[in-house]
Amino acid sequence: MAAIRIFVTGGTFDKEYNELTGTLAFKDTHVPEMLHRGRCRLDVAVTTLMMLDSLEMTAGQRAAIVEACRRAHESRILISHGTDTMVETAHALAAALLAAKTIVLTGAMVPYAFGSSDGLFNLGSALSFVQVLPPGVYVAMNGRYFQWDRVRKNRESGIFEEING
Amino acid sequence: MAAIRIFVTGGTFDKEYNELTGTLAFKDTHVPEMLHRGRCRLDVAVTTLMMLDSLEMTAGQRAAIVEACRRAHESRILISHGTDTMVETAHALAAALLAAKTIVLTGAMVPYAFGSSDGLFNLGSALSFVQVLPPGVYVAMNGRYFQWDRVRKNRESGIFEEING
Amino acid sequence: MAAIRIFVTGGTFDKEYNELTGTLAFKDTHVPEMLHRGRCRLDVAVTTLMMLDSLEMTAGQRAAIVEACRRAHESRILISHGTDTMVETAHALAAALLAAKTIVLTGAMVPYAFGSSDGLFNLGSALSFVQVLPPGVYVAMNGRYFQWDRVRKNRESGIFEEING
Amino acid sequence: MAAIRIFVTGGTFDKEYNELTGTLAFKDTHVPEMLHRGRCRLDVAVTTLMMLDSLEMTAGQRAAIVEACRRAHESRILISHGTDTMVETAHALAAALLAAKTIVLTGAMVPYAFGSSDGLFNLGSALSFVQVLPPGVYVAMNGRYFQWDRVRKNRESGIFEEING
Repeated sequence: MAAIRIFVTGGTFDKEYNELTGTLAFKDTHVPEMLHRGRCRLDVAVTTLMMLDSLEMTAGQRAAIVEACRRAHESRILISHGTDTMVETAHALAAALLAAKTIVLTGAMVPYAFGSSDGLFNLGSALSFVQVLPPGVYVAMNGRYFQWDRVRKNRESGIFEEING
Repeated sequence: MAAIRIFVTGGTFDKEYNELTGTLAFKDTHVPEMLHRGRCRLDVAVTTLMMLDSLEMTAGQRAAIVEACRRAHESRILISHGTDTMVETAHALAAALLAAKTIVLTGAMVPYAFGSSDGLFNLGSALSFVQVLPPGVYVAMNGRYFQWDRVRKNRESGIFEEING
Repeated sequence: MAAIRIFVTGGTFDKEYNELTGTLAFKDTHVPEMLHRGRCRLDVAVTTLMMLDSLEMTAGQRAAIVEACRRAHESRILISHGTDTMVETAHALAAALLAAKTIVLTGAMVPYAFGSSDGLFNLGSALSFVQVLPPGVYVAMNGRYFQWDRVRKNRESGIFEEING
Repeated sequence: MAAIRIFVTGGTFDKEYNELTGTLAFKDTHVPEMLHRGRCRLDVAVTTLMMLDSLEMTAGQRAAIVEACRRAHESRILISHGTDTMVETAHALAAALLAAKTIVLTGAMVPYAFGSSDGLFNLGSALSFVQVLPPGVYVAMNGRYFQWDRVRKNRESGIFEEING
């Protein structure tokens, strides 16, 4: 069973409610807790690269994600990411031509810390895709996977859709 | 995008707490609600075949599941099932030689109705596997998939493990 | 058993996560759902006066709350309110000299829509106090009640404390 | 602010799902976690006397609860208890003539460990009643309080009702 690396970059997936300021903010990632809840028995290592809203991700930070994927020993990588610029990061990863690596990006529309989150569903979904898809860069949202150049986020509906490459 | 059929058979996945009797029982399946929570946009149809604890599943009921899979128009089928005899049903399905169908069984160790359930994670996981695995019969639990003849449930730990076929 | 009126004014208590904008906003109040969850069998009527963050409450809106309490037939009134200016509204109510009415204000530090909310606990707590306290204006938070002129919100800790009148 | 003692005796309030056996069972009480979630700042001490379904409570165990209340230094005592024989325990406490103590019994129809529990609401409610009611023995359920000899559990509806003493 291949080892999987999960790179955490933040996004709505990991936001929490700060009760003193009344705003949404990041603390520690919930991914380990979610893997525990799913009783996940895969060989998984979790690394937090950054914790930010993807609308605020700079080109430098996006490059850092690509570099982390390049250096990773694992050939199967899952990236938790804000949904707003997830596709941009997918494009950056594809451009890096990281041979023989299966990279799947996922996120959530509602923070895992809330009761009605899609986070746990998306994590299970993306972890399955990363185990079986051939090398390439993919986005996994709404129960399905998309090729990096065949997807966009529909900002009106909040749903990810397939587009022609 | 291929259509997927979900056959619901019950199991811990769908148990609920009956407050008048103080026991666990079945009402309606939570699968549609879980697909909604996951913001699933797959072409999925949900059919409840039965709602029972798999320890109480008779040979006749197991045969009914096999027959439902045979008759289904879809070539990709997910079955929610109690974990205790999930492997038995997988064996019955494999014996039926349902050509060109990808069938994935999943369940949960804790009812979805509880706060700490693995149900949503498993559903996302199994739905992904059923979309990409080649025809055959599989069990999806603990974040991974198993061939029908390479898996058993470890009753001491509650974890599904790979065994030699 | 005396009838109780619940006036909803918003606050963190009722905030929800808007997944398209990524912000916290108000939709319908959760109070009826919370009363249902608590299996509350009191004679309670719920009226939404407004839905706003109490930091944005104007003097006119505060006066509207006072007027609603004055007009209410019930002699026992619970008000759900943002915690930031809950004490100010308590002062305005006390100044209105609403004879023979027991008025209790409560709120939450974390939205009920989140998993770790104090909302349900505070609602149960405040409903009990409003049934047994003598006429007057009170704040119910952190499990206890305070006289309207003996309380302040400690903004560093987010906790309500007793002060000398 | 008077000190409050919470005696935990189990009941549906504290039941959990045992995933290996598929049954409901007791582990540690959730009361401290619930007080934390409610951001309760009362002077409260929690003691677990026993953890059982109240249908299985023996006369000896009921007597132990009475004795614990007699010995407690606190004059305000809350008891978490199974709803099925909560009224019986209330009668036993009243018979013990524990002068100058306010004792409130509460429980839940759905385990706190489940998502739709009345537990947190009932705890907040009972804690408020125990602070303000005069010495005596009471049951707090469904948002209200009852005198020990004026209440019964309606087993068809699961609701507590007032009866003539």
